Amino acid sequence: MSVEIPPDHPRYRSLLYRERLIEGMEKKVTAPAGLIAHGRGEAFDYLLGERTHPHAHTAIRQAAFLLLTSRHPVVSVNGNVVALCPEELVRLSKVTGAPLEVNLFYRSREREEAIARVLREHGAEQVLGVGAEAVIPELSSERRRVDPEGILEADCVFVPLEDGDRTEALVRLGKKVITVDLNPLSRTARTATVTIVDNIVRALPLLIEVIERHRDDPSSLAVPDYDNKRILAEALSAIVHHLTATAHELAD
Amino acid sequence: MSVEIPPDHPRYRSLLYRERLIEGMEKKVTAPAGLIAHGRGEAFDYLLGERTHPHAHTAIRQAAFLLLTSRHPVVSVNGNVVALCPEELVRLSKVTGAPLEVNLFYRSREREEAIARVLREHGAEQVLGVGAEAVIPELSSERRRVDPEGILEADCVFVPLEDGDRTEALVRLGKKVITVDLNPLSRTARTATVTIVDNIVRALPLLIEVIERHRDDPSSLAVPDYDNKRILAEALSAIVHHLTATAHELAD
Repeated sequence: MSVEIPPDHPRYRSLLYRERLIEGMEKKVTAPAGLIAHGRGEAFDYLLGERTHPHAHTAIRQAAFLLLTSRHPVVSVNGNVVALCPEELVRLSKVTGAPLEVNLFYRSREREEAIARVLREHGAEQVLGVGAEAVIPELSSERRRVDPEGILEADCVFVPLEDGDRTEALVRLGKKVITVDLNPLSRTARTATVTIVDNIVRALPLLIEVIERHRDDPSSLAVPDYDNKRILAEALSAIVHHLTATAHELAD
Repeated sequence: MSVEIPPDHPRYRSLLYRERLIEGMEKKVTAPAGLIAHGRGEAFDYLLGERTHPHAHTAIRQAAFLLLTSRHPVVSVNGNVVALCPEELVRLSKVTGAPLEVNLFYRSREREEAIARVLREHGAEQVLGVGAEAVIPELSSERRRVDPEGILEADCVFVPLEDGDRTEALVRLGKKVITVDLNPLSRTARTATVTIVDNIVRALPLLIEVIERHRDDPSSLAVPDYDNKRILAEALSAIVHHLTATAHELAD
């Protein structure tokens, strides 16, 4: 299924990440529904002009602050995130000391192990959540199963590309939840403590960079009066602005 | 991979069509990249409020007019369209007399045959494009291969969920091109003669209904001064309107 993408193709990067997802599915890392979710993300990224906006930089700063100042942060990973940026996940775990935990909606032992294998190939020493036994109360999907040393004990969870039910359950349990979601209107985006409305492949390197730069002085990162609703409103404005500008070009 | 979807789930229909795509992939009807494309469509449908707008009804009317008054119309099908609405494709072909032609971006004999099989299971008597030999000039992808009795000879082609290169090539060859595309900014949407900006699963039954109702009097269907650019501008406005309304709800 793999196709050759010429590097001068206008959509080279987007096609490259698409190929990573398809390869991820062939390696059992990504579920088929994960490919559909990736497509939804692509559409919203396109509407954002495929760039990191100021609201995302603000959210990244606040996310870095929370990850550096929490007692027990955890990095929750799923198939799409691992297919797209495994190196960055391992690096984020190392710079924050937050363990990586596999956390799937379509859970199977085979996929858990495939994901853990990819993370280990990229330098992860420990991967939680393989054969996870603990359970998040009030969640009916397989995703409620979490590692007792990981998310269950965490005070702060980084859950990029997460679903709404799960995010709500984590927030109800009193955890600080940081997510990356390209749809500012999704339930995940609206429920999380901090929502980075950006493409994970752009946001993750930026988050790591901010953390590395401010590791010794995390309190300087705190965004005064951080308001996640304002972040989402700004993301929506950016989309409306981009659509309106493109509509004007179209009319010319 | 198939999951049970409770019929009272707020996203029941959307999840159902998602499952059809995944099953389509398992039957080799849909390519993995087709799942990603479906996700992009889902995002735009969500932004349209998941309903058929007046601009789409206008485009459907004009599409029905063209299909009924063309000398040699053809219905071009790909994996996603066949996975989503095979019955409707067969019915459209019957009510218009336009042959069905398999026309894939990721072409393989196996997929061509899988698609033709599904169409035959749904009552198609003839399916063109399996082992297609003719070539559309100026197109480098495998998609340039078309059936010499079908698209190559057609004066009007219905190509739902089509890619930009292909649509441009068909228009350059002087054919009238009707497409269904949820992204009003896509190259396909902007190049086609008539663009129905709507979900194929809603648009196709409506198109068939209009054709059946006006089969004996097609000229009554022609939209005076039909302007596809205006259709796209109206679709964009609908998206902006829906986003703005949701942003206001969010702020409350």
